[in-house]
Amino acid sequence: MLSRVPDPLIIAASLGDPAGIGPELLCAAWVERKSAGLAPFFVVGSMAVLAGAAVARGLTVPMLAIDSPDQAASCFSDKLPVLDIGGIDYAPGQPSDGGAELAFRALEVATGIVRGGGAAALVTAPVAKSQLARVGFTQPGQTEYLAQRCGVSARNAVMMLAGPSLKVVPVTVHAALAEVPGMLNVELIRDRAMIAAAALVRDFGIAAPRLAVAGLNPHAGEDGRFGTEELTIIAPAIAELRAAGFDVVGPLPADGMFHPDARARYDLAICMYHDQALIPLKTLDFDEGVNVTLGLPIVRTSPDHGTAFPLTGTGQARAGATIAALRMAGECASRRLAAS
Amino acid sequence: MLSRVPDPLIIAASLGDPAGIGPELLCAAWVERKSAGLAPFFVVGSMAVLAGAAVARGLTVPMLAIDSPDQAASCFSDKLPVLDIGGIDYAPGQPSDGGAELAFRALEVATGIVRGGGAAALVTAPVAKSQLARVGFTQPGQTEYLAQRCGVSARNAVMMLAGPSLKVVPVTVHAALAEVPGMLNVELIRDRAMIAAAALVRDFGIAAPRLAVAGLNPHAGEDGRFGTEELTIIAPAIAELRAAGFDVVGPLPADGMFHPDARARYDLAICMYHDQALIPLKTLDFDEGVNVTLGLPIVRTSPDHGTAFPLTGTGQARAGATIAALRMAGECASRRLAAS
Repeated sequence: MLSRVPDPLIIAASLGDPAGIGPELLCAAWVERKSAGLAPFFVVGSMAVLAGAAVARGLTVPMLAIDSPDQAASCFSDKLPVLDIGGIDYAPGQPSDGGAELAFRALEVATGIVRGGGAAALVTAPVAKSQLARVGFTQPGQTEYLAQRCGVSARNAVMMLAGPSLKVVPVTVHAALAEVPGMLNVELIRDRAMIAAAALVRDFGIAAPRLAVAGLNPHAGEDGRFGTEELTIIAPAIAELRAAGFDVVGPLPADGMFHPDARARYDLAICMYHDQALIPLKTLDFDEGVNVTLGLPIVRTSPDHGTAFPLTGTGQARAGATIAALRMAGECASRRLAAS
Repeated sequence: MLSRVPDPLIIAASLGDPAGIGPELLCAAWVERKSAGLAPFFVVGSMAVLAGAAVARGLTVPMLAIDSPDQAASCFSDKLPVLDIGGIDYAPGQPSDGGAELAFRALEVATGIVRGGGAAALVTAPVAKSQLARVGFTQPGQTEYLAQRCGVSARNAVMMLAGPSLKVVPVTVHAALAEVPGMLNVELIRDRAMIAAAALVRDFGIAAPRLAVAGLNPHAGEDGRFGTEELTIIAPAIAELRAAGFDVVGPLPADGMFHPDARARYDLAICMYHDQALIPLKTLDFDEGVNVTLGLPIVRTSPDHGTAFPLTGTGQARAGATIAALRMAGECASRRLAAS
């Protein structure tokens, strides 16, 4: 088969909050571009911020201002291409409305470029949701924003966290623990699992994904002894998934799902709530966790950490997750393009 | 200081359910006694069951019937000492009322010996709670039974799970997730943390234990955005602990507490519910997790797994947790005796 992957494939990265660790980690990723085997990327944001962040981290990062994404590939090996959309002083650890506006615009422009086919994937650096809310950003987070921009219901934009050791989908995400049992239903679990399975095939090259579904309660409820959600909600969802031809086991006691032998038996763990998914992911792959949005018409990844304002400019923030997000975006985009 | 540790220190091990993996793992631990550096132990149970279990596992385990714990030490290096309290056929994977009665009596006798000073620590092999309930065992589990036998309120018998990488105390244990928020209160968290800290000093030789307390909600609630228990319950409990002189941090986002850098900052994680504690413990230390009951007048440990009836006699069950439980019991007992 002739490969239809454009050579080279280009990734658009949004700057993130300029006061956070996003800009310095994008610079660090560019420095590691060859050893990490990264596809070319360009940053939508501010050359002034990126230059300040590189200096603060002690990195030498020559940059080239580009007007259009198609200029990025040819310079990437020697310079970090930047689509400069407006400057702001680099003020590490000092969030501001101006910085939030820049982060918001960078996200808007980068999303527009990827939606329009000007880049093959979107990597978003971290933003501060509370800061964004002050400047007119009305969505709970970048994932919901991207779903809306892509014309996808937020319910069908599925967050997956992926590291070298584990992939997890939390069926519910940013909700108080007390609200989680009431948010679960057969359709939600079934639909998120189906979207995730389809994405593993299309974007991750896993021909027949094996899913493992966690119970909600300790020991997966022990036949109703500690809660009934396994019997009334989770097992029926699994039955529907199996009837639809998916390879699914569960509900499994969550505490026994994440040791090495257990992980070898599945490709993706479907978890009922945020910490059930994120505790094992971050225990195993803290510095390399990637947040992937499944179910969108575009490829979108993000490092699985926040702005970490107190760390900005200290050199302590690790670039592993940003590098992993860029690498995964390139791999997913490459698979989509090869199949298109 | 002259050591007052009796030489040798003796541990009593209860057989556990004879149809489960307990007996074969006690035999396997005896085989490894020298390489694992185990203190002498004897099994309260059935020589017929232990002999059958050893054969099924392909182990050569010479045994000596003893009448009294003080006969155990002298033979331990050559034979597994067994206080035989009645026979039953070895029927791997086939639980029965007779087996449950044997497990119950073994627990009763072993507890009595340790309570009476005939052994320095108790290690309990796994029982099946549903089986025990059929033969007159009225407590929810062995921990509650032991609390009652020791005259300690079940509320003050604190379960800790300990592995080479991590120690955790779940403040609530076998409850449906939906019930957890309503079970939490300042006093419960404070008291369990205090009991656990005292045990780390007395039994684990940690002079000034550092405690890390998890939040209940994702991101520890983000200042009340996802639940208020951190603000109304967990932070006040931490404030009381600090006022009492304890070294405590929290409430911490649970998903960021268990990677290597985070674990280096504390000795014990206080968790709000079963899976919050057990997911990281079993992710990191699946084959070596020990369940320790803190707050009792006796030292009691147990391998952190169940009877695993389907594995019994297959040779697949791993002895690491049983060996770790025996080793930890010896270490804790040794510290208590040295300080007495």
